[in-house]
Amino acid sequence: MRVLAFDVYGTLFDVNSIGRRLGDMGFVELWRRKQLEYTWLLTIMGKWMSFREVTRMALEYALTQYRIDKPVDELMRYWEELEPFSDVYLLRGLVGRVRMYVLTNGDEGMVKPLLSRWGLADLFNGVFTAERVRAYKPSPAIYRTFLDFIGEPGSEVCLVSSNYFDVAGAKNAGVCAIHLNRRGSPPELGVVADAEVRSIEGLVSLFKP
Amino acid sequence: MRVLAFDVYGTLFDVNSIGRRLGDMGFVELWRRKQLEYTWLLTIMGKWMSFREVTRMALEYALTQYRIDKPVDELMRYWEELEPFSDVYLLRGLVGRVRMYVLTNGDEGMVKPLLSRWGLADLFNGVFTAERVRAYKPSPAIYRTFLDFIGEPGSEVCLVSSNYFDVAGAKNAGVCAIHLNRRGSPPELGVVADAEVRSIEGLVSLFKP
Repeated sequence: MRVLAFDVYGTLFDVNSIGRRLGDMGFVELWRRKQLEYTWLLTIMGKWMSFREVTRMALEYALTQYRIDKPVDELMRYWEELEPFSDVYLLRGLVGRVRMYVLTNGDEGMVKPLLSRWGLADLFNGVFTAERVRAYKPSPAIYRTFLDFIGEPGSEVCLVSSNYFDVAGAKNAGVCAIHLNRRGSPPELGVVADAEVRSIEGLVSLFKP
Repeated sequence: MRVLAFDVYGTLFDVNSIGRRLGDMGFVELWRRKQLEYTWLLTIMGKWMSFREVTRMALEYALTQYRIDKPVDELMRYWEELEPFSDVYLLRGLVGRVRMYVLTNGDEGMVKPLLSRWGLADLFNGVFTAERVRAYKPSPAIYRTFLDFIGEPGSEVCLVSSNYFDVAGAKNAGVCAIHLNRRGSPPELGVVADAEVRSIEGLVSLFKP
């Protein structure tokens, strides 16, 4: 395995950190749920909106359901201030053993500042976003175009994701997938990953020489 | 307008009637949410599972999250025993004025017994299901193949649905859409229907001579 491709939201960064800042987990769960729902619906319809637009639209819906007394622009900035899971820093132990990329639904303009903010940008050889194919995960196009982008066959690449639909999408596109199952979630949609780990520590140990 | 095409779940039949029978709305909301989520993910990946299979898979997930002491087969039967919204019987007033069809994600084997159970089958000229295209709403394929099936152009057909993603899908495929917005839900995904009504009574009044 020459390449690991990392999902961002829920895998490297904790979306629930927004809920902790706001003191309202339900609101953030609805926001995140609608954000994903809209990416799927747009992709099925062959339409494109940037992840920032999708996130804002989901926020506006969630704000009509909950009453949070914060301006939209301030809440949108929370996506660029998400907290990484603390074990993400262990990825430094893989530098030199595998090439690492980011493979994300997020816009470059959202993801790159987030990586830089936490000193994580230099871990990765590149950032590949859904913008390049104008379709969201788990569209086969995103995984296949990523393989072209890095110039490797699916057999040399493994996606690492906490999101079961992302694991499903990678497998469906012929890419190896490791499920970073942080919460011990039950299997969904009959998805079987090539490996399951509970933490980045578990992941790193798979690649010990 | 020569043809009205009706969505079934949430539009003619009340999915929440399962929650009322069980005395647990949260469980049924999760079941329904996962059912829809799986239809979207499968469609994006170009994979097919019958709606019954999808519904059972969503049920098994919801059962791991809630502890409901009922067997899977009994709960699955609830989908064939859903209650119609009481205003659905007003559709009889449209017979002879427009042709009416069912246009649904549900399997024929789930939907036809449901219509018969409540004496609604004879209202409709036909039942068109996602099985025929092996893709779920809002895939353009389901709306376009439906037009071929009934032999009418999009300009002579209007979808009636309570589900915003279904309204979006019809519009995206060039079909007129009436949003039966029973709960007065806020707009989502920037979807604009050709008309919005709050009940079947409102719909029928649009077609008064």
